[in-house]
Amino acid sequence: MPFVLDKNTLSKFDDTSFKAALTRLDNLTKPQGSLGRLENIAAWLCGWQRVEKPRAHKAYTLIFAGNHGITRQGVSAFPSEVTVQMVANFEAGGAAINQLCREVNSTLKVIALELDKPTKDFTEGPAMNEQECEEAFKAGMDSVPADADIIILGEMGIGNTTVAAALANALAGGDASDWVGTGTGIDEESIIRKRKAVSMAIDKHRTNLGSTLSVLQHVGGRELAAIAGAVWRARELRIPVLLDGYVVTAAAAVLQLTSKEALAHCLAGHLSVEPGHKKLLQFLGMKPILDLGMRLGEGSGAQVALAIVRCAVATFNGMATFEEAMVANREK
Amino acid sequence: MPFVLDKNTLSKFDDTSFKAALTRLDNLTKPQGSLGRLENIAAWLCGWQRVEKPRAHKAYTLIFAGNHGITRQGVSAFPSEVTVQMVANFEAGGAAINQLCREVNSTLKVIALELDKPTKDFTEGPAMNEQECEEAFKAGMDSVPADADIIILGEMGIGNTTVAAALANALAGGDASDWVGTGTGIDEESIIRKRKAVSMAIDKHRTNLGSTLSVLQHVGGRELAAIAGAVWRARELRIPVLLDGYVVTAAAAVLQLTSKEALAHCLAGHLSVEPGHKKLLQFLGMKPILDLGMRLGEGSGAQVALAIVRCAVATFNGMATFEEAMVANREK
Repeated sequence: MPFVLDKNTLSKFDDTSFKAALTRLDNLTKPQGSLGRLENIAAWLCGWQRVEKPRAHKAYTLIFAGNHGITRQGVSAFPSEVTVQMVANFEAGGAAINQLCREVNSTLKVIALELDKPTKDFTEGPAMNEQECEEAFKAGMDSVPADADIIILGEMGIGNTTVAAALANALAGGDASDWVGTGTGIDEESIIRKRKAVSMAIDKHRTNLGSTLSVLQHVGGRELAAIAGAVWRARELRIPVLLDGYVVTAAAAVLQLTSKEALAHCLAGHLSVEPGHKKLLQFLGMKPILDLGMRLGEGSGAQVALAIVRCAVATFNGMATFEEAMVANREK
Repeated sequence: MPFVLDKNTLSKFDDTSFKAALTRLDNLTKPQGSLGRLENIAAWLCGWQRVEKPRAHKAYTLIFAGNHGITRQGVSAFPSEVTVQMVANFEAGGAAINQLCREVNSTLKVIALELDKPTKDFTEGPAMNEQECEEAFKAGMDSVPADADIIILGEMGIGNTTVAAALANALAGGDASDWVGTGTGIDEESIIRKRKAVSMAIDKHRTNLGSTLSVLQHVGGRELAAIAGAVWRARELRIPVLLDGYVVTAAAAVLQLTSKEALAHCLAGHLSVEPGHKKLLQFLGMKPILDLGMRLGEGSGAQVALAIVRCAVATFNGMATFEEAMVANREK
């Protein structure tokens, strides 16, 4: 029996918890709405977690790593070996995400997906066969800890902004040039090659871009399929998700081919410098929490955004009400 | 002898430390520049602290509170008693800033400035006499702990967005309506009164708006003078400062009447919803770290921004270099 994503299994946001949270927020010792996005985030967490007081203490940062045949086309500033070297760096604790997980307390899990077996060059054929794609998707599902209050998704994979561009183009249409940027920092000739690779891929696989799993299989990659799987699984468990930059967002976004509501439990942690990310977030109707000019991946932007989510939770849970603090409310 | 601010005593940014920091950043295991603003912040801290590795561990959050005669003009949604009630709330640990100081580790100090002696209604005369203004400025100077790695400035004072508007108008020109917003949430009639109050104040004190201390004395307030004093003292000690929203920024901004470089050791922690804040930051050439739709005051926005600064420091200090991690650098 083929593996199928059933949109009827998507868990629902709990309006009762959300509205109770809004009521509490209006009684806390501050002008109504004056904590801005912090208030929205806290109430939104209550809706997904179905609780009176939101939780963000137990956080897991999941980094999925994969290698890509498309690097043969000269689309990255770094050689493919860097993927496995950076995974070693994550394990040794030397990467940006290690410091950020320590600073903004979170448990880091690195899921390396067959780094010695790059996907196929998708300008020539499907990136993966059906089974490989399902396995990667399921690896993502299996990586989500059931006890998480929130998960942060990141990635590492030399060449994967090219894959992200192909997914975004497949989902949101337009031209390859709308979705291709400089990634880790490539020159103009490489950008031309990168655009051409995406354009060729979309043309070649045009008839296979209609469903989440088919898009991931034909123009995706292992870590991107795993990210989509993790987002899907988190939804089953009603665990809110912080998306990182372009690659993570593109991987999650293709779930919209299963349901337009599939990303409702996700927040965009930050806006990447990679220009396709802004366009993709606009397409998805998502407003990033942070805009710090970051473009590193590894989950780094989302991990910084976790600090904001924690502030939202801390104020919501810890503040006194006007009555408790004996502070006069506004003159009405 | 009158109290005078001497711009020649302003400490200088250390370019050598700054450049060494940039060199280190380019050797860390990430594409160059890919941590965006986190990199800028870390290098900037090195320049002010004159160190190889920046510090943001020992943070102090200073909230200055004052009361304002201008509230007689019906410019606020809350009664003046709320200032003292909120100071009690800070002391009891029930306010937003208490939760944020606990979440983003910082020592909170609340400096209440003669709350039982509001300043005078500045539509009728100077808000303070010369001595009162100096005392408030010096109270701000005295409140800066010499051992701070960084300070976060906040305020509490019913009516003080009207005072901020007057200071901003005095400094940056334009019309009262450019600088007046809804504060804690006032109706259209109150906004008209608020604009009129600012306009009257600027007209009345026009000949006394040429120097930092004179502006603060005539159209300022105690907590705003103290904030300017704290910014000044932090500069003497080469302690970087995170400014909060409109009131704190306006209070600090008038130091530009002493030197255009007077705020070089300050970062704008966030962009407040209060519309004058955006204009004032543009006037000052400052780019806020966060834009979360906040407008609470108390230092809340800057306190959240401290989390970002900590991420900047953590990545700078903790990451491995390409050489240490044996990761291949970009293909050149």
